Amino acid sequence: MVIKLEQDDPRRVIHSFKVGLALVLISILQHIRPTFYAFGDNILWAVLTVALVLEFSVGATLGKGLNRILATWLAGALGVGTRSIANLCGQKGEAVLTTIFVFVIAGSVTFMRFSPRLKARYDYGFIIFILTFCMVSLSDDKERAMLKLAQERLLTIIIGSFVAVIVCICICPVWIGQDLHNQIAANMEKIAHFFEGFSDEYLKKSENTEVVHDRSFLHRYKSVLSSKSSEETMAVLARWEPRHGGFRFRHPWKQYLKIGNLIRLCAYNIEVLIACLPHSDQVSLNYEVGNKIKESCTIISSECGKTLKEASLMVKHMTMSSMHNSHVANAKNAIQTIKSILRTNPWEGVDYDEIIQVSTLASLLIDVVNCIQNICEAVDELASLAKFQPSQLLHHRGTVVQPVDDSVHVIAIIETPPILELRNEN
Amino acid sequence: MVIKLEQDDPRRVIHSFKVGLALVLISILQHIRPTFYAFGDNILWAVLTVALVLEFSVGATLGKGLNRILATWLAGALGVGTRSIANLCGQKGEAVLTTIFVFVIAGSVTFMRFSPRLKARYDYGFIIFILTFCMVSLSDDKERAMLKLAQERLLTIIIGSFVAVIVCICICPVWIGQDLHNQIAANMEKIAHFFEGFSDEYLKKSENTEVVHDRSFLHRYKSVLSSKSSEETMAVLARWEPRHGGFRFRHPWKQYLKIGNLIRLCAYNIEVLIACLPHSDQVSLNYEVGNKIKESCTIISSECGKTLKEASLMVKHMTMSSMHNSHVANAKNAIQTIKSILRTNPWEGVDYDEIIQVSTLASLLIDVVNCIQNICEAVDELASLAKFQPSQLLHHRGTVVQPVDDSVHVIAIIETPPILELRNEN
Repeated sequence: MVIKLEQDDPRRVIHSFKVGLALVLISILQHIRPTFYAFGDNILWAVLTVALVLEFSVGATLGKGLNRILATWLAGALGVGTRSIANLCGQKGEAVLTTIFVFVIAGSVTFMRFSPRLKARYDYGFIIFILTFCMVSLSDDKERAMLKLAQERLLTIIIGSFVAVIVCICICPVWIGQDLHNQIAANMEKIAHFFEGFSDEYLKKSENTEVVHDRSFLHRYKSVLSSKSSEETMAVLARWEPRHGGFRFRHPWKQYLKIGNLIRLCAYNIEVLIACLPHSDQVSLNYEVGNKIKESCTIISSECGKTLKEASLMVKHMTMSSMHNSHVANAKNAIQTIKSILRTNPWEGVDYDEIIQVSTLASLLIDVVNCIQNICEAVDELASLAKFQPSQLLHHRGTVVQPVDDSVHVIAIIETPPILELRNEN
Repeated sequence: MVIKLEQDDPRRVIHSFKVGLALVLISILQHIRPTFYAFGDNILWAVLTVALVLEFSVGATLGKGLNRILATWLAGALGVGTRSIANLCGQKGEAVLTTIFVFVIAGSVTFMRFSPRLKARYDYGFIIFILTFCMVSLSDDKERAMLKLAQERLLTIIIGSFVAVIVCICICPVWIGQDLHNQIAANMEKIAHFFEGFSDEYLKKSENTEVVHDRSFLHRYKSVLSSKSSEETMAVLARWEPRHGGFRFRHPWKQYLKIGNLIRLCAYNIEVLIACLPHSDQVSLNYEVGNKIKESCTIISSECGKTLKEASLMVKHMTMSSMHNSHVANAKNAIQTIKSILRTNPWEGVDYDEIIQVSTLASLLIDVVNCIQNICEAVDELASLAKFQPSQLLHHRGTVVQPVDDSVHVIAIIETPPILELRNEN
């Protein structure tokens, strides 16, 4: 289990080291006790803070640290304020008033936690607010002593958060924004893999009986189906992160969610496509009509794969490119070819099973091409919002590839060297 | 916003009251200070515990409470143990050894948190373990004083958890298992609503131009698409809950996840179905073939709706029933009708647009019926695993409805009073 966890993401081991290190730093502070750190028992607040605030990603750590500091400060101030008011009412009145304050404030903050928008960004802050407010209100200490204690605790929490943030940023930082960026690119690639393998797996059976043994790439798209909530969490955390790499402070994270939703739509299509097609050993696009449109279907699926791969590379390298548009155009041409074949009404004498199969395949592929065109538009929008760098070489090649005539078009693209190699030269 | 949050789920207001009340209970304990509660400053641990442990649902509260108590106890014991070992090595050795222990144990527990299986059930426990271990290890107190303090804190945490659990269970408890149960039933109903509205919306346009104004029920299925992670969380929390209502301690919660996944497959189908069909103002199953199969498609979608409604009611009321099987049989009969119509090759002179449209519709509906049959099988499995009560009346009616002849079959079911009314008589 340990080895698998490490292989899945080696940064996990580094994070475990970082947590250990941050706690050791706090314990060293405790042992050397410099003058500025004479807080006695309050060391526990720094330990608490480091253990709770230091998260896997920079965004989560910063978010939690800021939440913790702000909430402690606000709740401490409010607690001191309400105690001063309660103090005016004599001993019995104080107890009653304090109880009422605790009930009302804890209750209303708990209610605010149910708001999805506030919960996403400030949930931890709300919890700390309730905690701190209750502790200040219910504390036994006299007001003077309590004020001093509260100040010390706030300072210790700030030191703890500071240590956590420094360790998190300085040692192999994990930027959640980068992770979201990579995940969106990887999801596009997973769908691309499917479409590249699709025609070999489902359409070419009759010609090529050689079975490809590793078919796992055909199922990678499945993880895309349920990635919505993780993407949303990542986008919220990414907003806490400062400028890093190619990402500005106000990077358009919401656009990634939009692209993610469109990719998921495409994955739903794949799920249904697989369910509607007969099992691989029964694939039978061997009849007349099937053979006629098989070539076009193969072109559509391979162009869809290329489009998504190109869009994925564009996101990955943060470069502008218009290559994917030409692949989309090729796929649309192939759709026109299918439509014109079907327009000649080639159905006489054809088995009804095949009619249904061919029509469904065509219809779903048309839908897929629409989906992918939407993805490309969203990616282009992201490129302009996030100011991706234009890639000179690619632009040049892109125009060379642009066809005039439709039939030349398709061939020209097919004869182009694979995009990945093209990129490697760059 | 406040009103909307309350309307969405009125239990939220009650929960906020409960949190306020639990903190007031703790503050009363603090004020009256009975002999058994002479813990002085440790009141803050009870406050911390209540504020952190008291969650919306019983399952989450019990899980967090048990995690907190067990983790505090284990980490306290381990911390005392490692301090005794470190004590043997002189003052300098002690500091070095403590630091090493903190580093190794905090690091390895942090690493264990990455395991998805452990994280789901014990994540909170792991955090508390790290916290407590570090605090015990880095505390300044002498061993004797520390032992006493640790015992007091553990007792305070137990009291806090106890108060939280009592308040959570005794005042309008929210059972997360019941919520999961209801959500699965509601998801089936959402899909059922879609299929009941589907034929009116997409197939009957030509006959009936009256527009139904409230079409929102057609889009309710969308929430099903991304419900996977919430269902998984609920299933994990539900396992902490004791027997309540019709749910035993070891209720088959995993079966709900299985049903949930099958419902989602069905929702993917709907998403693609809508994308493949032309927009509602262009629906054109008016030609020859379309008219022939339109009736069967209407029967399939309405039978799918009825099947899911029946399965949803079966889950909701926890009763055994075989009604849904007869609806599935009707849908399958209608599929056979479509197939036999298409087998006569009615395509001559038909527009190719319509061929694609009709075939895709037929193909997707066939796939939907398969999906729904799988859902019914999973629901039956749940019924036998969770020992649902057989419903005598329904069984009786079910057999009356069972047809002998296929054509009579469909009509018989259609003339049966709506299932909901049938249920109400029961």
